[in-house]
Amino acid sequence: MKQGTRTARVIDAVRRKITSRALEPGEKLPSIRGFAATMNVSPSTVVDAYDRLTSEGVIHARRGSGFYVADSTLPFAVTEVGPSLDREIDPFWVSRQSLDAGPDMVKPGCGWLPAEWMPNASMRRAIRQLGRADDALLSDYGSTRGALNLRRLLARGFAEEAIPAGPDQILLTASGTQAIDLICRLLLRPGDAVLVDDPCYFNFQALLRAHQTQLVGVPFTPNGPDTELFEQALIKHKPRLYITNSALHNPTGATISPQIAHKVLNMATAHDLIVVEDDIFAGFEPDRSPRLASLDGMDRVIRIGSFSKTLSASVRCGYIAARPDWIEALIDLQVATNFGGPSPVAAELIYATLSDGHYRKHMEALRRRLAGCRSETGARLAGLGITPWLMPRGGFYLWCQLPDGADATEMARVALAKNIVLAPGNVFSVSQAMAGFMRFNVSQMGGPEIYDILNRALKGKT
Amino acid sequence: MKQGTRTARVIDAVRRKITSRALEPGEKLPSIRGFAATMNVSPSTVVDAYDRLTSEGVIHARRGSGFYVADSTLPFAVTEVGPSLDREIDPFWVSRQSLDAGPDMVKPGCGWLPAEWMPNASMRRAIRQLGRADDALLSDYGSTRGALNLRRLLARGFAEEAIPAGPDQILLTASGTQAIDLICRLLLRPGDAVLVDDPCYFNFQALLRAHQTQLVGVPFTPNGPDTELFEQALIKHKPRLYITNSALHNPTGATISPQIAHKVLNMATAHDLIVVEDDIFAGFEPDRSPRLASLDGMDRVIRIGSFSKTLSASVRCGYIAARPDWIEALIDLQVATNFGGPSPVAAELIYATLSDGHYRKHMEALRRRLAGCRSETGARLAGLGITPWLMPRGGFYLWCQLPDGADATEMARVALAKNIVLAPGNVFSVSQAMAGFMRFNVSQMGGPEIYDILNRALKGKT
Repeated sequence: MKQGTRTARVIDAVRRKITSRALEPGEKLPSIRGFAATMNVSPSTVVDAYDRLTSEGVIHARRGSGFYVADSTLPFAVTEVGPSLDREIDPFWVSRQSLDAGPDMVKPGCGWLPAEWMPNASMRRAIRQLGRADDALLSDYGSTRGALNLRRLLARGFAEEAIPAGPDQILLTASGTQAIDLICRLLLRPGDAVLVDDPCYFNFQALLRAHQTQLVGVPFTPNGPDTELFEQALIKHKPRLYITNSALHNPTGATISPQIAHKVLNMATAHDLIVVEDDIFAGFEPDRSPRLASLDGMDRVIRIGSFSKTLSASVRCGYIAARPDWIEALIDLQVATNFGGPSPVAAELIYATLSDGHYRKHMEALRRRLAGCRSETGARLAGLGITPWLMPRGGFYLWCQLPDGADATEMARVALAKNIVLAPGNVFSVSQAMAGFMRFNVSQMGGPEIYDILNRALKGKT
Repeated sequence: MKQGTRTARVIDAVRRKITSRALEPGEKLPSIRGFAATMNVSPSTVVDAYDRLTSEGVIHARRGSGFYVADSTLPFAVTEVGPSLDREIDPFWVSRQSLDAGPDMVKPGCGWLPAEWMPNASMRRAIRQLGRADDALLSDYGSTRGALNLRRLLARGFAEEAIPAGPDQILLTASGTQAIDLICRLLLRPGDAVLVDDPCYFNFQALLRAHQTQLVGVPFTPNGPDTELFEQALIKHKPRLYITNSALHNPTGATISPQIAHKVLNMATAHDLIVVEDDIFAGFEPDRSPRLASLDGMDRVIRIGSFSKTLSASVRCGYIAARPDWIEALIDLQVATNFGGPSPVAAELIYATLSDGHYRKHMEALRRRLAGCRSETGARLAGLGITPWLMPRGGFYLWCQLPDGADATEMARVALAKNIVLAPGNVFSVSQAMAGFMRFNVSQMGGPEIYDILNRALKGKT
């Protein structure tokens, strides 16, 4: 590992202690020698890290006494404030680079399809219908649970999955992320432990840090979480919640096996763990795979999802399906924090698009197209020594191992200077053990010249 | 005061202690005799209240030892869970009754205009344009700050107010409520004191309780907060934040005077208080009134607003204008908790409607119409002995004093049985001293028969 990477790892560890409040403002940092031993780096690396954090104002030195966390005027800043090009490659880095990327950028690191691959024709038909809707639909807040027609449509899908959740047990939300946020507000307190997969979707980490929870990563296998380590984590950390994607897991594209699903649910029951199953990639599956919510029957599993990946991220809408008492409490929380659910106009557009006769055909064609892209991109990347960890059954992600010694974070920095946004492995990793991995979006590879640029970035050349 | 009301007041006080965590799960409640003295009620009233809370599972009795807060399985339930007709009249009561009201209900208690009073013609034109928009607008997440055209339009408005906030200092949000929620996440920790007006918008209370802050009410005068009591509260509680509407205050309709605005800002500076100025009713003003954000120039005042009252609550969009460093931190928080801002489609519809040539004329006509409604409703209510506290310069609220001895909460209960949703004074009041007040929405009075029903409800008759 290069010196720069080691320093970054120490900086990140300190930041994490501050944002998780393991270190409070004004508190003394670990000694240089002690922290060097903990992090398994040389004392000079810790000195470098502390110096850099000092120059950023995150910590300050007191002569002869050591380093202290700065008294921030913001009690809770999730990260430092600064121009986005200079910022640390943290879980926000990929989000902000991808969301704010100019039209000239290529974004293999982003988490969505190109706009022209989306069901825009169905959406335009839905918009034309909307122009003829009642005044009330166009201007009122809508009911607290969200549009009934969309909840009914979702409930029919749940019935096919044998998930016992009627329309009253479904709450529409402004987005899938907001769905998880509401659940965190209801079920978590600062300091609670939460299990996530290692690797997992980077924004789970950002969100859970915003709730000041303690993240515990469980290594992910091609068939789901490592059950032995999962149980050890349950015993050691007594987590309240586990957040996962059972199907087409982000970033790996893996799908949980029936045996692991069954084991995970048994362990959850034995240790009183609540599971949030984020089903956001379900529409990309070629056929149905196991679901924790189906096995559990809506007791300790909460199902969330959204339409942002398959239908539109501009017309935002997510949902939560859960026990009736939780739904009631979540409604209050959504009223308090957003005065109700998603835009009724958004829910109507989603409903109309999903009900449009052409939508199913569009999705079939999209799945075929993505299957082609996965093979092609996989083969081309393999030519550079970048090898997929597994070949997913569906979706647009390839989670890849870089050639020996290559550092994904460095590669992402180099690529950004060439207007390419990458998603380096460690932004997905609580343990920060994924420096040799990269997530690629097979639908966002741009032209063939990208492989040349990736090859140069891999070698650290700009 | 009737026995039922006294019991409800004690129940409410206990609930408040639990939700604010003044009483933790498992903790012992005050003794019956002691709490009776504190609340200035008879011990039997406290017994009644404790019995009722016991039957609801909120507390439980231990033989010979007293009453204890139940160990909730939900660490944070803002209120009890239950069918909405039975629920306590708390700050959520009006929200949920109004949002979920059927088409047969009359809603003088709600906080919005009838759908047919909104600029639907302009909105329909905007929707037709949207059908011809780029694929990217229809399907992509959009940038982290939200649509640039809408931020530019807002910035031009700020320039007219002499508020120095360019488009980069503006963050679009999913709603006005979510704007305040993000600010609370950034600036507040559990236990922090927050100043609100007494009375204030009930959802400020719900939101601030969701953040587990300590609410401090400052009595509101027809010209703004009582400055003497404001300063006392600053000294005593050292609040971090003050949330207010400077213009057409909710629920009173009052507007801050230049002198009080100046004093409040000086006190804020002296005591390092941050002010959130919610400008949501600005569009209803006949002419511009003083603003804290204008006096302050975006140093310690944060401006928030939304288009839900004037344009559409279905097409939701709010905004925050604040110091650049706060905006940067708020962007991260919005990415973490909602993966970006409002729907780009919503922002585009808002922008197109605001830019539509007919919108200004629509608002002029609406202001005239509301002025007529305010006089007419005021006169009719006065005929029942219900007198406006002041006659607002604009907007749709009348904050009214009920005849001597009438209890607004009881009246709201009686009216609900007649399919009328009212907004009783105490849901707006941190001190719970507004039992004799009621907020009426002059645009939602239904037909003339409502005055008859109000008269009967006033007398406790169904």
